[in-house]
Amino acid sequence: MTASVLQINAERLHRRIADLGAVGAIEGGGCARLALTDADRAGRDLVCGWMRELGLSVSVDAIGNAVGVRAGRGNGPAVMTGSHIDTVRTGGRYDGNLGVLAGLEVIASLNDAGIETEHPLAVAFFTNEEGARFAPDMMGSLVFTGALPLAEALQTQGIDGSTVGAELARIGYAGSAPTPAAAPHAFVELHVEQGPVLDREGIEIGVVESVQGISWTEIEILGTSNHAGTTPMALRRDAGWAAGSIINFVRELAQEFGGDQVATVGRIEFFPNLVNVVPNRAVLTVDLRNTDEALLQRAEAQLAAHLDALRDAEKVDINTRTLARFAPVPFAPAMCDRIERHARVQGLRTRRMPSGAGHDAQMLAAVCPTAMIFVPSVDGISHNVREFTHPQHIEAGANVLLAVLCELAGTVPPAGEPA
Amino acid sequence: MTASVLQINAERLHRRIADLGAVGAIEGGGCARLALTDADRAGRDLVCGWMRELGLSVSVDAIGNAVGVRAGRGNGPAVMTGSHIDTVRTGGRYDGNLGVLAGLEVIASLNDAGIETEHPLAVAFFTNEEGARFAPDMMGSLVFTGALPLAEALQTQGIDGSTVGAELARIGYAGSAPTPAAAPHAFVELHVEQGPVLDREGIEIGVVESVQGISWTEIEILGTSNHAGTTPMALRRDAGWAAGSIINFVRELAQEFGGDQVATVGRIEFFPNLVNVVPNRAVLTVDLRNTDEALLQRAEAQLAAHLDALRDAEKVDINTRTLARFAPVPFAPAMCDRIERHARVQGLRTRRMPSGAGHDAQMLAAVCPTAMIFVPSVDGISHNVREFTHPQHIEAGANVLLAVLCELAGTVPPAGEPA
Repeated sequence: MTASVLQINAERLHRRIADLGAVGAIEGGGCARLALTDADRAGRDLVCGWMRELGLSVSVDAIGNAVGVRAGRGNGPAVMTGSHIDTVRTGGRYDGNLGVLAGLEVIASLNDAGIETEHPLAVAFFTNEEGARFAPDMMGSLVFTGALPLAEALQTQGIDGSTVGAELARIGYAGSAPTPAAAPHAFVELHVEQGPVLDREGIEIGVVESVQGISWTEIEILGTSNHAGTTPMALRRDAGWAAGSIINFVRELAQEFGGDQVATVGRIEFFPNLVNVVPNRAVLTVDLRNTDEALLQRAEAQLAAHLDALRDAEKVDINTRTLARFAPVPFAPAMCDRIERHARVQGLRTRRMPSGAGHDAQMLAAVCPTAMIFVPSVDGISHNVREFTHPQHIEAGANVLLAVLCELAGTVPPAGEPA
Repeated sequence: MTASVLQINAERLHRRIADLGAVGAIEGGGCARLALTDADRAGRDLVCGWMRELGLSVSVDAIGNAVGVRAGRGNGPAVMTGSHIDTVRTGGRYDGNLGVLAGLEVIASLNDAGIETEHPLAVAFFTNEEGARFAPDMMGSLVFTGALPLAEALQTQGIDGSTVGAELARIGYAGSAPTPAAAPHAFVELHVEQGPVLDREGIEIGVVESVQGISWTEIEILGTSNHAGTTPMALRRDAGWAAGSIINFVRELAQEFGGDQVATVGRIEFFPNLVNVVPNRAVLTVDLRNTDEALLQRAEAQLAAHLDALRDAEKVDINTRTLARFAPVPFAPAMCDRIERHARVQGLRTRRMPSGAGHDAQMLAAVCPTAMIFVPSVDGISHNVREFTHPQHIEAGANVLLAVLCELAGTVPPAGEPA
């Protein structure tokens, strides 16, 4: 019954979170470690130092992904955990970092207990998960799994005119490990939810079954600029009204679809943007997400039909541009079952849920059995210095990660099952 | 039957329009003569010179309004016409200018024919009608009629930090005529429609019965910024959606009210204005106009009720600020009848209509019988270098103005009536 007594050292984990959070610290308790900046290098150096202190064999690949491996009794592929340590410009200290540092804490706990595993255990951090400096986001895990050619990623130009390849070389993280990498035996990522569901419902562990598909569309509406006083309603081609109609339509669509469907208009601009002028141009974005690809496509088709109706009704021209499109990613059901079982054995409340945000795990899911563990984000706040997860939830999540990794790596009999 | 033969000289009128349009000319055929700039001074000098050439006695008051008076046989108050010669930054050459120059053409035609009038005839241009540099608009006619204290107007600071008083002195148009001025016997303003109605309907003369009341409200909505992927619809306080709901609501309100009611959301901003973030703040403006004060108040009340409903439904905070509020101004029915009668005698098609834009005439309406004559604006375009009115419509409007002024000033028997 080793599984039931082996626990992570919460104090040590929290200390590492605080120490990494001090690198690129910004006012309010947050972090600014944009990918491949000096601050990111300092964070990488700290984490790679910890990996080496824990006896891991550290390799860095050509896109800067770092993997620390603890040897197993056998030579099979590693059971991998990890996440990312880059942040948005005004990020918190948990997003990404928790998954990497909890992985190190699992290693430290096994080291302390002198426990070996059949499969090697690996802890990775992937380059530029956030995409805040270089697009696309999840760049490191895309290259790691072969979904994005290395050369294309290296040529990517950032918001500051720099390129990924040059910045990797500059900070000393253009490594030599091959990409795509060999597929792990399995991948598990612990992450803060970044949404309000677990916190609202008082549940400690989210069993992430899938990552929502994302459809981002930029919509440009072209009407006619008119005097707001002298132009009768019937003679208007009001780009602003058409934009408002789209805002209302996507809300109604989300309500009608229900389930996991969400819909957001987050960005809008009117031209000339004057109180007494009917806008002749409006640009807005629609963000549609669903865990079901068929439903997401239906939502996109209904939006397109609404735009057609608007063209007819308001005599406006409408142009659309796809800003991003990812299909939903289902995680391995057996992996989800495993997470749920271990969490319950540990007396934790669980909830099956999708991830509304993108994560490195969704790339790994293409090459090996993958799932994610969520812990609550207070008030759902993330990408914000006020991001916070209660210490006991961090500890609970790390202990579930420990149990799941041990089982996958072949040390411990499955909880509740004969050895 | 003098009335039926006396006609303005269209060529001379068009030449003056072209000559004044050359002052402050900008690319595309438009004008930039912001109030009290050097370009405005040059325009004023040109028009005042024409007034003197026509034998008018020119006076300038302390807010820079210029009035040229042609003596009458009697000593009664003058029958006045006029408008403004300042423009917006990218204005046309007809807006305002037409009313002043058609007035001069009426004087020139009477001079040519050697016709005297009982009442004096006056042609005025009022300072800063546009309000594009100094608020409020219609400043000159407000001071002329006593609706705005002179001292307050003179202290007004412009968008460039200058003040009205200092700029008037600088360009030499701080005159000595008293304000408020003595009330005219009657006031008639010829103006381009600045809307599409006459052009669409193929009608030459608009008989303006009233100026719409205006209600401008800035609405600030405060919600919560959330991740567009991770935040279920039911947990959102979406300031952007609330803004969209207002856009839809005011359109529906205008359709439900019908008649002269118009409603426009011309300006909007979202914060932080990112594709994947639920806006925590939205600011938009609502422009409501109606010719009926009771209906305008009902529209305002229904908007307020919608905001209350939104506060409850989306749990957002909403602040409102009145940016402008003018009650509708009805013109004198007998004046409107007079314009309509003369236009029909001249074989012109007429249409009763409100003005959706503000005009100096609405200020004069408070002190004397007043009405306006509209001529068509091609495609309703105004405040734009593409502003255009067909020459034959300019001629028609000026001839109606001539007939109406002659009748009011007491030279000619009313058209269709015995002397």
